[in-house]
Amino acid sequence: MTLAQLGADVTRVDPIGGAADYHRWPLTAGGESIYWAGLNKGKQSVAVEMRSEQGQQLVRRLIIDAGILITNVTGRQWLSHSALSSHRADLIHLEVPGRPDGSTAVDYTVNAATGFPLVTGPAGSDGPVNHVMPAWDVSCGLYAALSILTALRHRDATGAGSAIRLPLDDVALATAANLGFLTEVMINGTRRPRLGNAIYGQYGRDFVSSDGVEFMVVALTARHFRDLTDLTGTATAVAAAEEKLGADFTDEGQRYQHRDVLDSLFAAWFRTQTAEQITAALSATSVLWERYRTFDEVIGTARVTDNPLFTALDQPGIGSYLAPGLPMSVDGVHRPARSAPALGEHTAEVLAARLGMGADEIDTLVESGVVAT
Amino acid sequence: MTLAQLGADVTRVDPIGGAADYHRWPLTAGGESIYWAGLNKGKQSVAVEMRSEQGQQLVRRLIIDAGILITNVTGRQWLSHSALSSHRADLIHLEVPGRPDGSTAVDYTVNAATGFPLVTGPAGSDGPVNHVMPAWDVSCGLYAALSILTALRHRDATGAGSAIRLPLDDVALATAANLGFLTEVMINGTRRPRLGNAIYGQYGRDFVSSDGVEFMVVALTARHFRDLTDLTGTATAVAAAEEKLGADFTDEGQRYQHRDVLDSLFAAWFRTQTAEQITAALSATSVLWERYRTFDEVIGTARVTDNPLFTALDQPGIGSYLAPGLPMSVDGVHRPARSAPALGEHTAEVLAARLGMGADEIDTLVESGVVAT
Repeated sequence: MTLAQLGADVTRVDPIGGAADYHRWPLTAGGESIYWAGLNKGKQSVAVEMRSEQGQQLVRRLIIDAGILITNVTGRQWLSHSALSSHRADLIHLEVPGRPDGSTAVDYTVNAATGFPLVTGPAGSDGPVNHVMPAWDVSCGLYAALSILTALRHRDATGAGSAIRLPLDDVALATAANLGFLTEVMINGTRRPRLGNAIYGQYGRDFVSSDGVEFMVVALTARHFRDLTDLTGTATAVAAAEEKLGADFTDEGQRYQHRDVLDSLFAAWFRTQTAEQITAALSATSVLWERYRTFDEVIGTARVTDNPLFTALDQPGIGSYLAPGLPMSVDGVHRPARSAPALGEHTAEVLAARLGMGADEIDTLVESGVVAT
Repeated sequence: MTLAQLGADVTRVDPIGGAADYHRWPLTAGGESIYWAGLNKGKQSVAVEMRSEQGQQLVRRLIIDAGILITNVTGRQWLSHSALSSHRADLIHLEVPGRPDGSTAVDYTVNAATGFPLVTGPAGSDGPVNHVMPAWDVSCGLYAALSILTALRHRDATGAGSAIRLPLDDVALATAANLGFLTEVMINGTRRPRLGNAIYGQYGRDFVSSDGVEFMVVALTARHFRDLTDLTGTATAVAAAEEKLGADFTDEGQRYQHRDVLDSLFAAWFRTQTAEQITAALSATSVLWERYRTFDEVIGTARVTDNPLFTALDQPGIGSYLAPGLPMSVDGVHRPARSAPALGEHTAEVLAARLGMGADEIDTLVESGVVAT
């Protein structure tokens, strides 16, 4: 989808009836998949019976015409790089298996094996806490788009194609290592504890107002921290604690190590203030903060309703709603969101335009069940 | 870092003494930042006093020579697109502010305002649960690399530069909307509940073995589900439950809706099996599963120790460890990881090579405190 948002003609080829994600929740009251519509914006859809030799032949021709393939199906000879590149030497072929050995894995199983669920959630609690945002799927999709753009630029310059493999599990492992979660254990032999909503190595956590509203508050720099002590009227108490502990709160690590003391000093102030008072007070400082929001609160804020990232999209079968484009603007402009296709909506159009097929030929393919429109 | 991993010459310009992330945890016993080393692999480092006019002038010249700028500093006139593009019309200028209005935000504050923390963690629990993996930072970094590659390809083709803005908050909002979390509320008026480790709209959750080991198990398709009922010897009981409930467990949504019934049937089997028995049994099926792992377990597995994604890296000040390259291989090859620079390590080299400065000129800049080496 990202490549379609960047302006590429992206054709998604599905089995007739749809792949496993075609009916994925959330659904509308009428049973249409909001999930599918959200992740296929701006693509063309072609439906082919890929268990038949004729269907495979058609898909092969489409790939050779396009010159780029992205697939999460691995181990099928007819879709392999060697089979396809014999027909088009400069093919860009990207496989996204679950694991490097080609076996299947999904975000939620990959995540279990990364280490993150066992350090997520309240300090002192037991058992894993899974993420709800499928971070590995999202990162993997972005790495996939990046791989294609890099290979395209390489092909532009040299004429050569690329055979790329991007296992979902390796996306997770590379990220966990880049961020220091794995390296820390390799170097220091220690792993960080479960911290609840505290931030490792920095001062940051959640606080509750007198009227029960939760805020996330982060003091990254010495200036943020000074502002936070001033705001909460705790400068004297914090300095006294600093002296008693022999600590230096200009150091981010020491603010983290002594967070329990700081938490109790700051929390006392938050508990006496309403959400409105806290919002006004924090807004006047350098402190980084946000009020926790539910999804239904988010859609009602100006961040969505008055943001050129979102444009009104009329999605057949689902309705009209505010849909995002790419998160970046280029030269001040966000490209508006485009609707997702119905399954097979572009079968006839693509076969005609890309493979030069006539209407009769396409009708025959439909009647024999090789494609669906 | 991603661009450096893709082969670009990336020069990171920092203030003398380092930016806010230079001492970020995790640290080694000797106080070196594992975090900084992990996220600056393969870059060159230049240290400049950017509060001085002379320092700003140097940085401007480096940007104009490079033709590409990525910055999270916004609102500084001397680094603005208009100021810089007057010296180089084809400049690619990427700003990454926290919010679209240019104000500061970090992953943990952005996340609080997305909606995710209020649906993460055990069903029925109160309060927010923050993610530990900074998913918005990671996604934003990948979108940044993608923006640069897209703009480069555009410049290759047309000669034109680009002014790009990529707010961290918009990365989070676009992703929450793409995945259906926001759209669902817009269309249906309902938001999903907090589900613990269950997966919304599908059958999947965690189970514990007789010896206390946790597994994540996902049955995405009808075949996965059949295999799970066969494995656990619950086919008859599941069929009886299906009939009694008037349900159709070939439908993924109905498996999700009746997950409590299914959970109890399957959990009974898991509780009677050791982790070893469960591993052997699940391995023989199509079911998607993983054993939950701690970070220290992860680094000891073949996924890390016998994976060409990781290469031995000698990082000065930190030591030798297995570091990841990019998660994708190209034509069967992973580029090996490269070490991160010491702060200012390349100041002299870059000033000489890019700006044609002589040794005397550089010495004068060092002595006057404009740069550090």
